[in-house]
Amino acid sequence: MVDTAPRTHNSARKASDAQGARSGTSGSGRAGTLTPKVDVAALETQLLGDWADVRRAARELAGRPDMQKVEGLSLADQRARTFGQLSLLVENGQVHRAFPKDVGGEEDNGGNIAGFEELVAADPSLQIKSGVQWGLFGSAIVQLGTERHHQKYLPDIMSLKTPGAFAMTEIGHGSDVASAATTATYDPETQEFVINTPFKGAWKEFLGNAGNDGIAAVVFAQLISKGVNHGVHAFYVPIRDADGAFLPGVGGEDDGLKGGLNGIDNGRLHFTNVRIPRTDLLNKYGDVAEDGTYTSPISSPGRRFFTMLGTLVQGRVSLDGSAVVASKIALTIAIRYAAERRQFASGDGGGEEQVILDYQRHQRRLLPLLATTYAASFAHEVFLHKFDDVFSGATDTDADRQDLETIAAALKPLSTWHALTTLQEAREACGGAGFMTANRLTSLRADLDVYVTFEGDNNVLLQLVSKRLLTDFSKQFAHADAGVLARYAVTQAADRAYHAGLRSLGQTVRDFGSTARSVGWLQEASTQRELLTDRVEAMVAEVATALRPASKLSKKDAADLFNSQQNQLIEAARAHGELLQWEAFSDALEQTPDADTRQVLTWLRDLFGLGLIEKHAAWYLMNGRLSPQRAQAVTAYIDRLLRRIRPHAVDLVNAFGYGPEHIRAEIATGVEAERQSEAREYYRRLRESGEAPIDEKTLTKKKRP
Amino acid sequence: MVDTAPRTHNSARKASDAQGARSGTSGSGRAGTLTPKVDVAALETQLLGDWADVRRAARELAGRPDMQKVEGLSLADQRARTFGQLSLLVENGQVHRAFPKDVGGEEDNGGNIAGFEELVAADPSLQIKSGVQWGLFGSAIVQLGTERHHQKYLPDIMSLKTPGAFAMTEIGHGSDVASAATTATYDPETQEFVINTPFKGAWKEFLGNAGNDGIAAVVFAQLISKGVNHGVHAFYVPIRDADGAFLPGVGGEDDGLKGGLNGIDNGRLHFTNVRIPRTDLLNKYGDVAEDGTYTSPISSPGRRFFTMLGTLVQGRVSLDGSAVVASKIALTIAIRYAAERRQFASGDGGGEEQVILDYQRHQRRLLPLLATTYAASFAHEVFLHKFDDVFSGATDTDADRQDLETIAAALKPLSTWHALTTLQEAREACGGAGFMTANRLTSLRADLDVYVTFEGDNNVLLQLVSKRLLTDFSKQFAHADAGVLARYAVTQAADRAYHAGLRSLGQTVRDFGSTARSVGWLQEASTQRELLTDRVEAMVAEVATALRPASKLSKKDAADLFNSQQNQLIEAARAHGELLQWEAFSDALEQTPDADTRQVLTWLRDLFGLGLIEKHAAWYLMNGRLSPQRAQAVTAYIDRLLRRIRPHAVDLVNAFGYGPEHIRAEIATGVEAERQSEAREYYRRLRESGEAPIDEKTLTKKKRP
Repeated sequence: MVDTAPRTHNSARKASDAQGARSGTSGSGRAGTLTPKVDVAALETQLLGDWADVRRAARELAGRPDMQKVEGLSLADQRARTFGQLSLLVENGQVHRAFPKDVGGEEDNGGNIAGFEELVAADPSLQIKSGVQWGLFGSAIVQLGTERHHQKYLPDIMSLKTPGAFAMTEIGHGSDVASAATTATYDPETQEFVINTPFKGAWKEFLGNAGNDGIAAVVFAQLISKGVNHGVHAFYVPIRDADGAFLPGVGGEDDGLKGGLNGIDNGRLHFTNVRIPRTDLLNKYGDVAEDGTYTSPISSPGRRFFTMLGTLVQGRVSLDGSAVVASKIALTIAIRYAAERRQFASGDGGGEEQVILDYQRHQRRLLPLLATTYAASFAHEVFLHKFDDVFSGATDTDADRQDLETIAAALKPLSTWHALTTLQEAREACGGAGFMTANRLTSLRADLDVYVTFEGDNNVLLQLVSKRLLTDFSKQFAHADAGVLARYAVTQAADRAYHAGLRSLGQTVRDFGSTARSVGWLQEASTQRELLTDRVEAMVAEVATALRPASKLSKKDAADLFNSQQNQLIEAARAHGELLQWEAFSDALEQTPDADTRQVLTWLRDLFGLGLIEKHAAWYLMNGRLSPQRAQAVTAYIDRLLRRIRPHAVDLVNAFGYGPEHIRAEIATGVEAERQSEAREYYRRLRESGEAPIDEKTLTKKKRP
Repeated sequence: MVDTAPRTHNSARKASDAQGARSGTSGSGRAGTLTPKVDVAALETQLLGDWADVRRAARELAGRPDMQKVEGLSLADQRARTFGQLSLLVENGQVHRAFPKDVGGEEDNGGNIAGFEELVAADPSLQIKSGVQWGLFGSAIVQLGTERHHQKYLPDIMSLKTPGAFAMTEIGHGSDVASAATTATYDPETQEFVINTPFKGAWKEFLGNAGNDGIAAVVFAQLISKGVNHGVHAFYVPIRDADGAFLPGVGGEDDGLKGGLNGIDNGRLHFTNVRIPRTDLLNKYGDVAEDGTYTSPISSPGRRFFTMLGTLVQGRVSLDGSAVVASKIALTIAIRYAAERRQFASGDGGGEEQVILDYQRHQRRLLPLLATTYAASFAHEVFLHKFDDVFSGATDTDADRQDLETIAAALKPLSTWHALTTLQEAREACGGAGFMTANRLTSLRADLDVYVTFEGDNNVLLQLVSKRLLTDFSKQFAHADAGVLARYAVTQAADRAYHAGLRSLGQTVRDFGSTARSVGWLQEASTQRELLTDRVEAMVAEVATALRPASKLSKKDAADLFNSQQNQLIEAARAHGELLQWEAFSDALEQTPDADTRQVLTWLRDLFGLGLIEKHAAWYLMNGRLSPQRAQAVTAYIDRLLRRIRPHAVDLVNAFGYGPEHIRAEIATGVEAERQSEAREYYRRLRESGEAPIDEKTLTKKKRP
C-alpha cells in the first residue's frame, strides 16, 4: 500500500501521525482498543474516485509554483501570469481531453473535468480562465458547431492561438438567456449574418477573455431570417485583430477589478452590424440555407433552446467539483490548526490550555462542514459519472439529459454556497491568523465568491430543480384530487440507483416511536432516508396543491400565486439536493472496504443526515414527522457524534490528499505546535531555575487567614 | 423641514420619488389611501440619533474623494494613502473629541465614536487605522495612564506626530489576554522596567501601525517586581527612531497582505530586554514605587485586570456602529437595484418583466436583513448612550460598567456577523454586477471580514455574555433546587429600561391559544417580547441545571461538563443579544411621531421579531411554547409582512441618509432603469416600424390547426 501511495499521501500521513502523537487523541486504535482507526491511504484513494490518475496528475501540476497564484500582484501582472499559465497547461497536455479525436483530442469528458477541478488548488483564476477558453468558448464550438467548425477553429483554440470569449450573458438579462437582445439577422444577398447590439442593455457582459486577451467570441444572438426570429443561436465572431485592437463594428470595455478572480480579464462587448459568413453559425441544432430558409432537427423552439443550453452543462459540473476542492483545502487548514492551537486553560486556570478542536463549539463549527464536504465530494463523483455517461453517449437519452441537468442545478448551488460557508467559518475559526493572506483562506474565498452566481445563479438553478419536481409530481398525480395529493403514497421505480427527480416513499413518515429508542432509530440509514425523502415529497405536494387553482386564474393572478410559493419551492429544491448528497454519501459507505474506516464514515454520514434533520427540525415538528422528544434526541445524538468523530478529524482531512504545496497556509504547517513546545520548554526551565515569579493571586490567597 | 435637512437627504428623497414613480409601487399614500407613507426626512433624523450633528459632519468628510478608498492600489500605495488621510482627519479637527480637555480635547466620548463610525463609508481602513491611533493607542494612555502621561504623550499622539501601536495580542494568545507572556520586570537599581519577549509565541501580533508607521507602542506585559507577578499592565514603549528603524532590542515583521483593510500596516513586535523608565508604566490601576513596591487601588488582581480591559470597550462600541453603517450601505445598493432591475416576464412570457424586488424570494432575502439593520441601528444608539454615560461619569458604577461590557459583548458579535451576511446577500442579490469592484460590495465585505474576530472574537464575546447570564441566574436562585430552577418565575426589577443582564418573565409562556387568533396574537409586541425573553431564560435555566453537579466534580470532569454545554450557552447569549436588539427597536417605535412611519416601522419590527421566532421555531415547538399551528402562522404572517413592507423598501433605505458620494456603486445610481427605458423605446419603435421579426413560437402555434 505504501509503495503505491502518492507522495502527497505520504506527507499527509506523516503529518497525521505527528498530529496524533501531539494531541494524544488519535491513533489509539492500532493497539486493538475500541476506537477505530481510519485507513487514510485507502480513504484517499476512494475519494480520488474513478478519475484518480487524472486527478493525481493535475494535483502534481497544481503543486508547481509556476502554476500558482501570487498574491498582491497588480491587475495587469496577475492577468499576465494567469494567461501565461494557460500556455503551460497547453504545453503540459492538460487541455485536449474533452476535444474530438479527429482534432487531436481524447473525448474523455469526465477526465477532462476532473483534471480542471483540481486546478483550483493552484489558482481559481487559472481554473476559471481555462474553463472560459476550453470549457465554454471551445466547448460551444464542439457542442453547437459541426465538423467544419471543428476543423477550422478547434486546433487554434486548443493551442491557445485563438483565445476567445463566450458571449452569452447580457447586462440586461443575466440568467434569462432566452431574452437576449443581440440579433443575428441573415442577409441572403451577401450570405452573411449581421450581428447587432440594439441598445446598451444588450451589451455582452462579464465575459472572461473579453477585457483583453480574446480575439474571437462565440456570440449568442436571436437568429432572424426572412422576418422570423428563431430564437437564440451561437455564432463564431472574430473581435480583435493581431494587434489587439477591436475589429470594425466591435466595441467593448474592460470590467476592471472584481471581488476575486482577477487573473481573468472580464469585459463587455457590443456589435454594430458586424458581418460574419453564413457558415459561422454554429449549426448543429439549427441552420440557415443560402436563401435564408431555416431548418432544425428539433422542431420545438423551446426544446431546441434548452437542448443547446444543455450542452453547456459542464461548467456547472466543474464548478461543483472545484467548490468541493476549495472546501477540502479550507477544512484541512482549519482542522489541522484547531488540533494544534491551544487557548484557555480548562477548569479555572492551572491546567494546560485546551486544544481548540476539543471545545464543543469549535467541533460544532467545523465537523458538520467536514461531513457536508464528504457528502458533496461523493455526490460530485456520481454527478461526474452521469455527465460522462451522457457526453460519451453511453447513456444519452432525453431523460438522461434532463436528469443530468437536474443534478447539476441541484448540486452546484449547494456545493458552491457550502464552499463559501466553509471558507468563512474556517477563516473565523483561525481567528486573526485566518485573515492573513499568507494563510490562504481569504484569498480562496474571494475567488470562489462568484461561483454562487455564475454559470446559473444559485437561486435560479434551484427553481429549475423545483420545476422538475413539480413536473414529476404532476405526472404522478395527473388525475388525483387535492385531498389525495397532500398525503399521497406511491412506490418509486427501484431500478435507478441515483434518480435525479422526485421520489416517493411507500408511506408518509409518522413519528409514534418512544423516546427511549430514539437514538437507535436515528442511527438507522432508513430513518434518515425516510425523513429526508418525505420532506421533499411533502413540500412539493403542498406547493402543488396550492398551485392547483392557477390554471383557472388570469395570467397575472396565476403569476402572483406562483410567486407566493417561490420561497417554499426553492427550499424544496434545496432539500432535494441535500437528499441527493445524502444518498451519494450512503452509497459510498458500501464502497469502503475497511471496517474501521467505514465506521468513522458512517458516523460522519449520520452527522450529515442528522444535521440536515436538525436544521429543518421545525418542519419535522410542525408536520408531525418528529415528536418533540425525538427532535431533542437528534441534537443530543449530534453532540455525541461530534465527540466520536473529533479524534479522527485530522485523519479525515488528511485523506483529502492535499500536500503542503496545495494547502500553502503557514498555520497548517505545524508552526503553532512548534511555538507551543518552545513556550512549554521556556516555562519548564524557568520553574527549574527557581526564579519564576510568584503569582500575585497565589500570594493574596496565602495572605488570607 | 426641508430647509434644515442635509444635502444627502434631499438627494435621497429625490431618488426615492423617482423610484416610486418608476416602479409604481410606492408613494400612493399621499392621496389618503390605505397605504401609509414613510416620512423619509423625519425617519432619517430619528436614525441619526442624538449625535446627529457629529454624524452629519463626519458624513460630509466621508463624502470627500480624498478621504475615500481607491481600489486596486498596491499595498504600499494604499497604506500611504490611508496614513495621509489620518493627517487630513487631524487637520479637520476630527480626532480630539474624546481626549481630556486639558490637552485640548472635548471629553465627548459618545460623539467621538459616532463620528468615527461614519468613516467606514469613506474607507474601513481609515476607520480602523484611526481607531488604532486614537481609539486604542491614544485611549490606552488616557484610560490607563495618569496626568504625567497625558501631558507628555497625548499632544503628539493627537497630532499624529507619534503614530503608535496597541501591543496587546500575542500570537500564542489571541483572545486570552490574561495569559500574555511578555514580561515587564522592574529593576530597582536603574528604576527601569525591562520589557522582554521570552519566546516566539509571545510576539505581539496583528498590530495596526506596527508594520511600518508606529514609532511607539503601548505594550501589555506581565508586571513583575520583587519576584511577584502582578498580572498584565500597560507600558509606553518607543519602538522606532526618526528614520523608521527599530530601536535597540526591538524587532518585528510586517504582516503583509491581509484579506482586507490593507490601508493598515499590521505587524508583529518583539522585545529583547528593552529598558523603559519606571514612570512609563501606565499607572492608573497599578504602580511600582522606586523601591519596587507594588500598589493598586484595586486589591483583587482579577478585578483589576478586568477593570483595565474594560476601559478599552470603545473599540467594540465603534465596531458595532461601523458594522451597522456597512449594512446600511449594502442594503441601499441591493434594494435600489432590486427595485429597478427586471428579470423574467411574469406568467409565461409576453408580459413586462418583473422587478426583482417583487419576487417573494428576493423579498425573503433582503427585507429581513433590512429589519435586522434597523434593529441593530436602534440598539447601537442605546449602546452608545450607555457607553457615553459610563465614560462621561454620568452613571459610572461597577454595575453600569458590567452592563456596558455585557451589551458590548452581546451586540458587537451580532452586528458584525450581520454586516457580513448582509454584504454577501446584497452582493449575490446583485448577481455578477455585485461582484464588480465598481459596485462596492465585495470591497466592503473584504474589509469588514475581520470585524467578527478582532476586538474580541465573536464566539468568545458571546461566552462572556453567557457567563453574565449564568451569574445573574445563580444570584436569583442561590438556594433553589434543580426542579424549581427549570421552571422558575420571578418578576424583574422594572426600573431599568435597558437592562443588560438576564431578565425574567412573570410566567413561562405556554401556547394554548387557538389557531384562528394566531396572527393577532403574533402581532402583539407583548407576545414577541414574551417568546424572546422566555427562550433566553429557559435556555440559561437549562444549562444552569445541567451545570449544578460541577461543584462536586474534579476540575477535569467539571470542565468537560461545562464544555458539553458550550454550544447551548453561546446560543443563549445570541438569543439575549437578539432580545436587546428587539427591545431597542420597540422602544424606538415610541419615539417615531409620524403615525404612517410608525406603522411601517412596526411592520418592520414585527418582521424582525417574528423572523427570530421563525429561526428558532424548532426550540419553541420542542419546548411547548408554540403549537404547530401557531408556528405555521408565524411563517404565513412573515410572508404577509414582506408584501406590506415591500412598497416602502426604497424609502426605508433612503432614510439611512447616505448620498451617492457614500454609496459609490454604479448599480445604485439608476443606470439599470435607464438601460431598460432605452430598451423599451427600441422595441416600441421596432413595433411601430412594422419591421419587427415574428417569433417562431407564434408561427408554430399559428401553423397548428
